[in-house]
Amino acid sequence: MLLVFGSAKLLAELFERLGQPGIVGEILAGVLIGPSVLGWVTPNEVMSTLAAIGVMFLLFRVGLELNPAELLKIGGTAAMVAVAGVIVPFFAGWGIWALWGNPHLESVFVGAALTATSVGITAQVLSSKGLLSLTASKIILAAAVIDDVLALLVLGVVSSLAEGKVNFLELILTPLFSIIFVVVVFRWGHRTVGKMVTRLEGRLKISEETFVVTMILLFALAALSAKAGVAAITGAFLAGTALSESLPKRVHEQANGIAELFIPFFLAGIGLHFDLRAFTNRTTLMLTLVILVAAILSKVLACGLGAARYGFTVARQVGLGMIPRGEFCIVVAQIGLGLKVIPASTYAIVVFMAVLTTVLAPPLVKLAFRDAVPQTVLH
Amino acid sequence: MLLVFGSAKLLAELFERLGQPGIVGEILAGVLIGPSVLGWVTPNEVMSTLAAIGVMFLLFRVGLELNPAELLKIGGTAAMVAVAGVIVPFFAGWGIWALWGNPHLESVFVGAALTATSVGITAQVLSSKGLLSLTASKIILAAAVIDDVLALLVLGVVSSLAEGKVNFLELILTPLFSIIFVVVVFRWGHRTVGKMVTRLEGRLKISEETFVVTMILLFALAALSAKAGVAAITGAFLAGTALSESLPKRVHEQANGIAELFIPFFLAGIGLHFDLRAFTNRTTLMLTLVILVAAILSKVLACGLGAARYGFTVARQVGLGMIPRGEFCIVVAQIGLGLKVIPASTYAIVVFMAVLTTVLAPPLVKLAFRDAVPQTVLH
Repeated sequence: MLLVFGSAKLLAELFERLGQPGIVGEILAGVLIGPSVLGWVTPNEVMSTLAAIGVMFLLFRVGLELNPAELLKIGGTAAMVAVAGVIVPFFAGWGIWALWGNPHLESVFVGAALTATSVGITAQVLSSKGLLSLTASKIILAAAVIDDVLALLVLGVVSSLAEGKVNFLELILTPLFSIIFVVVVFRWGHRTVGKMVTRLEGRLKISEETFVVTMILLFALAALSAKAGVAAITGAFLAGTALSESLPKRVHEQANGIAELFIPFFLAGIGLHFDLRAFTNRTTLMLTLVILVAAILSKVLACGLGAARYGFTVARQVGLGMIPRGEFCIVVAQIGLGLKVIPASTYAIVVFMAVLTTVLAPPLVKLAFRDAVPQTVLH
Repeated sequence: MLLVFGSAKLLAELFERLGQPGIVGEILAGVLIGPSVLGWVTPNEVMSTLAAIGVMFLLFRVGLELNPAELLKIGGTAAMVAVAGVIVPFFAGWGIWALWGNPHLESVFVGAALTATSVGITAQVLSSKGLLSLTASKIILAAAVIDDVLALLVLGVVSSLAEGKVNFLELILTPLFSIIFVVVVFRWGHRTVGKMVTRLEGRLKISEETFVVTMILLFALAALSAKAGVAAITGAFLAGTALSESLPKRVHEQANGIAELFIPFFLAGIGLHFDLRAFTNRTTLMLTLVILVAAILSKVLACGLGAARYGFTVARQVGLGMIPRGEFCIVVAQIGLGLKVIPASTYAIVVFMAVLTTVLAPPLVKLAFRDAVPQTVLH
């Protein structure tokens, strides 16, 4: 733990001093201590649990900063951003891969892998700069939640295609269920939770009862989300928004401590999966670059257009904020690999692309928000 | 995580309502969801990592409440408590086991297993009741640190005996090194760390720099302690005392949040190791009871006598506070099992004894401190 946390923070400090986002330093710390360079730490179950705790509290903390009512206002735009940001990258990935002469089904999987944005990285940059209350930030976060539901649909479709049997009922029911879940929590969670916390306060005999109730709510929503098919971090985010007005400052601070401790494990964990050894092949390198450019441009353009009515600045911020891909991309690639639809080389390329978008996003996001004035600097 | 945290807190609430210490409820939650009853959770590496984080932050938090200078004042008494509390239980365990007709070496191991106090449980009870600044509490905590070094010596001796080759140099050097480590950190850590934190404040570019420096210090001291042969939690405790005066309230609160989240995993984790199935045998039950009574009485009497000069009340508080055995006991038993010095039945008995002392301690400690007035209620 010392090694991961210490090296992440050391490189973060170094990067901040060089005028770069510290978050990139933390990811590169993972690359450095991981299998591809020093080999001090290998990805294992413990590391991934700590990373999962980190990203869960990251999204929870972000959710706490945002009021559901405010998010609803930009809901329409966020939906457009999410839909465009899933469709365009999908066809871009599919098209490029097919043009390169690869099998049809493999191309569909590559396209699918480009669809879902992983909002953790952007959220961390925005949160640390105190920019969460900007319109662009709210659009990004709301779009990421919708994106998550759409990704579920994409995953269902491509899995069915690969397995050769399409179960339409399941294909419709799973996303429908997740949509209902998200909408219910989002619309009514806020009021219910506020009432619940007020009612329980002082009624329980254990110490730190508000903290305990908060944590149980957070874990419960994360677990329910995972059950409903969406990412656990979406549940954590929803728990945050539901509690955004009723959580006392002290509990906020305690959750913050947990986030601060474990986010480096999430960031360094991304770096750990970066295996430089696969980069020895020139074709692989070339293809990675092409798919990386496609992944970035398709998201930036599609999401930017989706948010166009808020003007160029917001559109650019939203577009760049939606770049990072993450676990979803790796999940799609793993399913493809498991079903023998994509070869190991394609798997490696897709994983690289995901990690690279994550590393490239912070400086780009920082640049896009360069002129933005922090509205609520966290503490 | 939901399961462990939720059930621990649910049973804690239930126990508090029944007028019992919530901590016992959290341990019993582990028994309930563990292999011996419901079988929902089995001990694994992830659970033990979360438990280790819990107990580390528990001791760190306790250390933060205590000033080294104040601890030094009761140092002499603490040393007497620790020495008596190691010698008397050792001979009690050895004697009883030998009288029962067991082999000599096995009896030595059983005696050794009774020696070391595991201070986590008592610290949690005292901390949650706001009683850490009482003389008895300080004696217990300081004695636990010394006890830890003595336990290292005991472990060295019994391992050497069992392996049949005694390396006197190593036997002396290991505890000596750990003593030097503890003394250096304890005497000079305070001033150095205070200076370091003040100097770094504002110098670092990363956000939450004080929190980051604190965490690195905590992990570093815990890792160094483990290297020096003493328990990692002793290092965490020392890190806490070193920072007791220089840590800002906010970082305190953040560390507190981490402690609150993970302590249930430590407590429930104790319960997870409690396997009721081994209790079917009547002889085992009998022997466990005998050794349990010996473990409790020998500690209470020896440690009580060690603190006798502070009067009966303090002596009783210290004696009862030193009852819990923990990881050390299980480590000794595991070494004995590995070297085939003790049979599996003895191993099971020793582990039971450790868990039972842990479960029995909170109500006894609560009783002993019944008339004590909380001096600093946390928060």
